[in-house]
Formats: sequence, C-alpha cells, structure tokens
Amino acid sequence: MNANSRPLDLLNSAKGKTVLVELKNGHSITGTLMAFDVHINIHLENADERDNSTVVRKIGSVFVRGDTIILISPAL
Amino acid sequence: MNANSRPLDLLNSAKGKTVLVELKNGHSITGTLMAFDVHINIHLENADERDNSTVVRKIGSVFVRGDTIILISPAL
Amino acid sequence: MNANSRPLDLLNSAKGKTVLVELKNGHSITGTLMAFDVHINIHLENADERDNSTVVRKIGSVFVRGDTIILISPAL
Amino acid sequence: MNANSRPLDLLNSAKGKTVLVELKNGHSITGTLMAFDVHINIHLENADERDNSTVVRKIGSVFVRGDTIILISPAL
Amino acid sequence: MNANSRPLDLLNSAKGKTVLVELKNGHSITGTLMAFDVHINIHLENADERDNSTVVRKIGSVFVRGDTIILISPAL
Amino acid sequence: MNANSRPLDLLNSAKGKTVLVELKNGHSITGTLMAFDVHINIHLENADERDNSTVVRKIGSVFVRGDTIILISPAL
Amino acid sequence: MNANSRPLDLLNSAKGKTVLVELKNGHSITGTLMAFDVHINIHLENADERDNSTVVRKIGSVFVRGDTIILISPAL
Repeated sequence: MNANSRPLDLLNSAKGKTVLVELKNGHSITGTLMAFDVHINIHLENADERDNSTVVRKIGSVFVRGDTIILISPAL
Repeated sequence: MNANSRPLDLLNSAKGKTVLVELKNGHSITGTLMAFDVHINIHLENADERDNSTVVRKIGSVFVRGDTIILISPAL
Repeated sequence: MNANSRPLDLLNSAKGKTVLVELKNGHSITGTLMAFDVHINIHLENADERDNSTVVRKIGSVFVRGDTIILISPAL
Repeated sequence: MNANSRPLDLLNSAKGKTVLVELKNGHSITGTLMAFDVHINIHLENADERDNSTVVRKIGSVFVRGDTIILISPAL
Repeated sequence: MNANSRPLDLLNSAKGKTVLVELKNGHSITGTLMAFDVHINIHLENADERDNSTVVRKIGSVFVRGDTIILISPAL
Repeated sequence: MNANSRPLDLLNSAKGKTVLVELKNGHSITGTLMAFDVHINIHLENADERDNSTVVRKIGSVFVRGDTIILISPAL
Repeated sequence: MNANSRPLDLLNSAKGKTVLVELKNGHSITGTLMAFDVHINIHLENADERDNSTVVRKIGSVFVRGDTIILISPAL
C-alpha cells in the first residue's frame, strides 16, 4: 500500500473497465467508466440499470451527476 | 478511449441532440440539449415530461437547475 | 444553435415574460420574471400559485430562493 | 422594468414592510422585514407563525436561517 | 430602523439572553446564547429541550451546528 | 461572558472530556472528545451508541463526519 | 492526548486496517482503508456490505463518496 495513495486513484485505475455505481435514490447502474472529475461526475458507456443481477433498462451512454452517487465499485 | 476525457465532454457532444434527463423527484424529461454549464444547469427545447415512453406533459423551452438532476443520457 | 450559448441565456430572454416555476416541494408558481441571479434566486411579479391550470392562491410580488427551484419554463 | 435589476432588490424595497415567509418545513411566518444578507438570512420583528390567515403563535423578534426559506413575499 | 442593519445584529444583541432555537428535526431548545459564528453555529448554556412550554430534557452546555437550525428567537 | 467568545471555544474546552453527540439520523453517541475541526468532524474514543441512558453498541474509536451532527454537549 | 491532534489523524492511523463505515442510507460496509481525502471520500479493499455481523454482499474494491458517510470506526 502506497502511503500517499488517494481515493481517486481507484477510479483512475478503473477507467475503461466495468463498474457498479450505486445511487442515493436506491438504483444501481453498471457500465464502462469512461471519465470522472473531482465532483465524481462520471461518464459511462454501455450502461444498464440493474436490480441485483437483472438488467431492468438499457441506458447506453450516460452522464451521472456526482452528488447522486453513493459508491463506485470495479466489477469483481 | 482518450485518457484525458472529462464527463462534460459527453454533454458537449450531445448538444443539439435529444437527451433523457432524470430528476431527483422521480420525474423524467426529454428534449433537445441546447446548453449546459459547470453546475449542470441545462437548457432544453421541445421538452416533454415523460412516464416511461408516454408523454404526460409538453413543456417546450425549459431551464433545469443542475442540483435536481440525477443523470443525462443521449437518446439510444 | 449558438455553440457558446449558456443555460442562463434562456432566463435572460424570458425577462418580462410569464414563466412557470416548479419547486422541490411539489408546488408550482407562475408570474412575470423580473430578475434572476447566478444562484437562480428569482423575482416574480403578478405571481400565482397553481395546481395544474387552476390558480389556488394569488401571491403578487415574490422572491423565490434558487435552491428550492427544479425548473423554470417560459409559457408555451 | 430595469434590465439590470436583481432579485435582492425586491427584498431591499420590502425593508420596514410586512412580508410573508414560507419555510421548507411547510410553516409560514409573517413579520416586518428588518434586515437580510446574501445567504437570505433574515431578521423579522412582530413575527407571527400562521396557518393560512390564522395566527397560531406569536414569535416577536426572530432570526431565520436563509437555507430554510422557500419564498419571501411582500404583503399584498 | 437602520438601513444598514444585518440579520446577525439581532443575534449579537441577544448574547447573554434566553433564546428559543427551532431545529430542522422538529425539536426546540431554549438556553442562554453565549456565542455564534457566521455559519450560525451556536453555544448555549443552561439549555433545555422543550415540547412547547414543557421541559422534556435538561442539556446544560451545548454546541449546535448551524445547518440544523431553522430560527433563533429572543424570548418574548 | 466574554463578548468575543466563539462557539468552537466550547468544543475546545471539552477536549478530553465525555460528550454527548446527537446525529441527524436520530442516533446518539457518547465518548471522549479527542479532536475536532472547522467542519465539526470529530474524533471520539471509548464511544458508545446510546438509546437514552442505555448503551446499545460499543464503538470504541470513531471518526464522525461533521455534516451528520446536530449537537455536541459536554456531559452534565 | 495531543492538544493539536486533528480528526483526520484517526483515519491516517487506520490506513491498512479494517474499518466499519456507516452510510446515511442505513447501510454498513467493512473493508481495509486504503486511502481518504479531505472530503472523506474513501477507498476500501476487501469490502463487504454488512447487516450487523452478517455479510450480505461482497463488494471487493470500492470508492465511497464522502458526503454519504456518517462515521468511520477502526475495528475493535
């Protein structure tokens, strides 16, 4: 573990990979993380809204406002 | 994927196109994205409030305050 | 469409005209837009609180704090 | 209408007059507007909490924190 | 009325006196106002939590975070 | 009473002593106040979650984010 | 107790150790604290969502946005 690592380093290493995003309204979105900024605004491609492992809606490209996000997790 | 891309680049490329906007109050609006700023305040034209694929109200021109927005998705 | 337009330009062009304002508490107000600032604080004249197309209360002059506003739409 | 007017001008012109203040918790207060600042913090004198036109509690002098305010309207 | 008065002047003049503080969670606290800052963080002594005119809990010294406060009123 | 006292002075004088912390989610925590900052982030040791005077969970060391705190009161 | 200690010192000393994180939505996550910043954004590894002492979901690597966090406690 690098003593100087920052939380955003995890997002940087997840670029181009599939991530799970949990929102404050209780919904979850999966997609490929294309970009993020310091507000944790994110751009996903191939995004799907999910209920557990089931896709409930195909979203495609999406901008998600950072202040609606609880957590972002690279796919296991 | 450009390693230096930013989330707002997606909104920039969506200017003049139809987008779906989901709001924190559970409502959805579709319309042509005319302008946005760093707060994610947006200006839509030909906007409609929707319940899934059904138009429930015609809004026309509208300014939406950024802090009420969950996500913005260019139409599939 | 001007590539450099900003969302506040729509509000600027709506000055002196009737606008519909939707608030986070679910209420709607119509009135003549007299002024706004970068926080989206607004000053309306001849304001009415409405339930759909019905006026439920005459308000007259009113200052509305920007952080309570969801959207502002010039009358169709 | 002055093209350069600002929303706070309405509050400035209401100083010393009776205003109706609606709060995010659904309560309303009327009183004489003595002072306000850029956060819309306000100082009222002779303040009453109201349920429509009925006074439900006499408050007297009161400081109201700006971020709890929806709107401020000079009495009709 | 001094045209240059500010809302915080009311709190300044209430130092050392009993004030009623209403909180966003619906609770009320009374106590002697010892200090406040620009965030409206306050320090009360001899504080009591009240349900209308009934003391429901003695608190004594307390720091109240400003963003939880709706209003502060010097005792009538 | 010192006319120049500040609310944070109360927290400073409470360092090393037992405090009661009430949170916006309705929970209460008691513990020894080790440190605080201007955001009212705090570090407690020997912390317990309480339901009135009953300990419902032992927490030990804990960092509490300031924006979740309603009030901090030194033990009576 | 160091009179100059800061709340973030607790998080610094918890790096590389297991922490319990309680979120505003009522969920709890445990994991190894890898990094944090001044917003209290955190990076956890080997993270599990828990209901009391029961693991309800394995998350693995996760970025948690600071404004969703109530408290962070190093494991007892």
